[in-house]
Amino acid sequence: MSDVYVVGAGMTPFGKHPDKTAAELGAAAVLEALDDAGVSLGDIEAAWVGSVFQGMAMGQRALGEGGISGIPITNVENACSSGSTAIWGAAMSIKAGAYDVVLALGVEHLTGAFRGAFTPDESDVEAQRGLTMPAVYAMRAQRHFAQYGTTSEQLAAISAKNKRNAVANPLAQFKKPVSVDEVLASRMIADPLHLQECAPVSDGAAAVVLASRRKRAALGGSRAVRLAASALKSGRAEVGLKDMTVEDLTWRAAEEAYERSGIGPSDIRFAEVHDCFSIAEALRVEGLGLFPHGEYPARVVKGEADLDGRLPVNGSGGLLGKGHPLGATGVAQVVEVVRQLRGEAGPRQIPGARVGLAHCRGGKAQGVEGTACTVNILTV
Amino acid sequence: MSDVYVVGAGMTPFGKHPDKTAAELGAAAVLEALDDAGVSLGDIEAAWVGSVFQGMAMGQRALGEGGISGIPITNVENACSSGSTAIWGAAMSIKAGAYDVVLALGVEHLTGAFRGAFTPDESDVEAQRGLTMPAVYAMRAQRHFAQYGTTSEQLAAISAKNKRNAVANPLAQFKKPVSVDEVLASRMIADPLHLQECAPVSDGAAAVVLASRRKRAALGGSRAVRLAASALKSGRAEVGLKDMTVEDLTWRAAEEAYERSGIGPSDIRFAEVHDCFSIAEALRVEGLGLFPHGEYPARVVKGEADLDGRLPVNGSGGLLGKGHPLGATGVAQVVEVVRQLRGEAGPRQIPGARVGLAHCRGGKAQGVEGTACTVNILTV
Repeated sequence: MSDVYVVGAGMTPFGKHPDKTAAELGAAAVLEALDDAGVSLGDIEAAWVGSVFQGMAMGQRALGEGGISGIPITNVENACSSGSTAIWGAAMSIKAGAYDVVLALGVEHLTGAFRGAFTPDESDVEAQRGLTMPAVYAMRAQRHFAQYGTTSEQLAAISAKNKRNAVANPLAQFKKPVSVDEVLASRMIADPLHLQECAPVSDGAAAVVLASRRKRAALGGSRAVRLAASALKSGRAEVGLKDMTVEDLTWRAAEEAYERSGIGPSDIRFAEVHDCFSIAEALRVEGLGLFPHGEYPARVVKGEADLDGRLPVNGSGGLLGKGHPLGATGVAQVVEVVRQLRGEAGPRQIPGARVGLAHCRGGKAQGVEGTACTVNILTV
Repeated sequence: MSDVYVVGAGMTPFGKHPDKTAAELGAAAVLEALDDAGVSLGDIEAAWVGSVFQGMAMGQRALGEGGISGIPITNVENACSSGSTAIWGAAMSIKAGAYDVVLALGVEHLTGAFRGAFTPDESDVEAQRGLTMPAVYAMRAQRHFAQYGTTSEQLAAISAKNKRNAVANPLAQFKKPVSVDEVLASRMIADPLHLQECAPVSDGAAAVVLASRRKRAALGGSRAVRLAASALKSGRAEVGLKDMTVEDLTWRAAEEAYERSGIGPSDIRFAEVHDCFSIAEALRVEGLGLFPHGEYPARVVKGEADLDGRLPVNGSGGLLGKGHPLGATGVAQVVEVVRQLRGEAGPRQIPGARVGLAHCRGGKAQGVEGTACTVNILTV
């Protein structure tokens, strides 16, 4: 199997884009990624495009808008892991030796697809009965409280950290810091989760150009980042029901990524993880083995996950600060890891960033509906 | 790159299934394919699932229903080519050496997703102005008429052939023959296309198990069929606008499949092609180089595409006779080719069937909306 490199990255600002279509956002991210890679439209041999609520043939529309047509395009949907599943598929094609230069795009125009918050699918009988995403994560938070003595203040510190990081990210949706007190004073959505602990509704797109070792060499490649492992695990999530603080699929995806890359949790210098809610960040980094189980919220209070901490988490601002255009999120995480590894993260640069991990989790993390989880590990 | 084999095939009856969910249909097809392959649930290492209108995480729900969870699952959407794109992705993973046994499933419960005919997407401005699928294909038929002297009677003969073939297929939606006169007497949908020349609204699922050479050998493999080539081309379809009888992406996908397999149009013994309308079958087989451009409808009248003809087309009944559950269609075509190659097609068996082609085309075949096309070539 050929090694896989990220040779270009592009990303639109995340936020509300009422004046743009999903195709336009997608095209902008693609063109920036191509430019960053130093490749032209005609160099792209195949593409994978992740989105959730954008209707038919999203990739064909976005790439067509950017001037790319006639190549193999696969639209993928794995709930909030759609974008990272696109990366997984694109990486597979290079490993197969089928192509030398491929594209992975994630794109979502949520404000165009929904007015206000989006309602659960009719077929989702659990959500129809109240088991919506905030409810699921609220229950998991309560369990974390009961089991480990975690407090609301500790969870709020996760949000405050990510909102603070977002201020240093020009592409983030939120531009001002939010204190722990402000998080706790915001409206209660599902006890114990406040408004400021829930990811927002966002529009945006992110793209990466992946290349084989051969093509990376031809491109010069001094800025290339190696995709050391890309793992996807998916299915129903019954296993987690035994203990709602356990992230079964997160661990299984991480285990595969660690094994394939030969890089273990102790080698990871920083991580972008799927913080759709404050508690979610805790469940993820604990599931990934980056922090001891049950201890993460307390350690955030101590600053361990800050940009200058032991293991910075969501230096980009995460979903809570940067925004969460579903299909784009998994790709945007990798874009952030790439920029950190290249030392291009400006005021949010993590010193000595040489190994980074991106974790993305989609779908109902409890219950019988489908779920998917990806772990990508990147190195310079 | 490893060779890829189809070692198991399964398919539900196509038709209206108000009493079943999409997940149940998908699970039924999967379990039949596993049984056919002689592999167990735990042998499946990864899965690709094609559907169009089934909402989030269709594959996780269908595979979960069948008892498979925790593996990499990728939901793919490429309009009516979703199922065949799933096969393309699954085959890629074997070529990458990532897995030895994977699953491709196509599933659609159209009667559950829509009441009656489905309306075009709000973002599809062309369809909103009248350029719906029947209108597009009616224009293309009119162009074929003007350019090649094709007649309504000749197009009706395509439908009559496929409806007749469907009678010999126990899984087909339509169970009785329809004469040319009956086709012409049916309601006009978009001149010159009558109701009996349009694919129906259907529910159904189809699945194939793909295996590497190594695994095929371990399974015994006497009934395995080789996937000699799987090609996908996609994008906007401006090129075709120059002449509406030309299938640009069909030809480009076929060209790649012919080149990769070393199998040319003259080697193809039979084909399953995407006959969403009577005229569509003509455009496809002509685009594939299986019949001379402009001549197919007249040759159907002569019986050349019959089960006992020179090159049988849509021996399964095609979309017109077997039904068209969008995401399932591309997989069902491959299931049919596999059964023909194994000599298991019963009363519709094509004598000497050793090389077959499956062609699937999704999305708007003209205009700026996205489109996708796959060509799979299989041999014994």
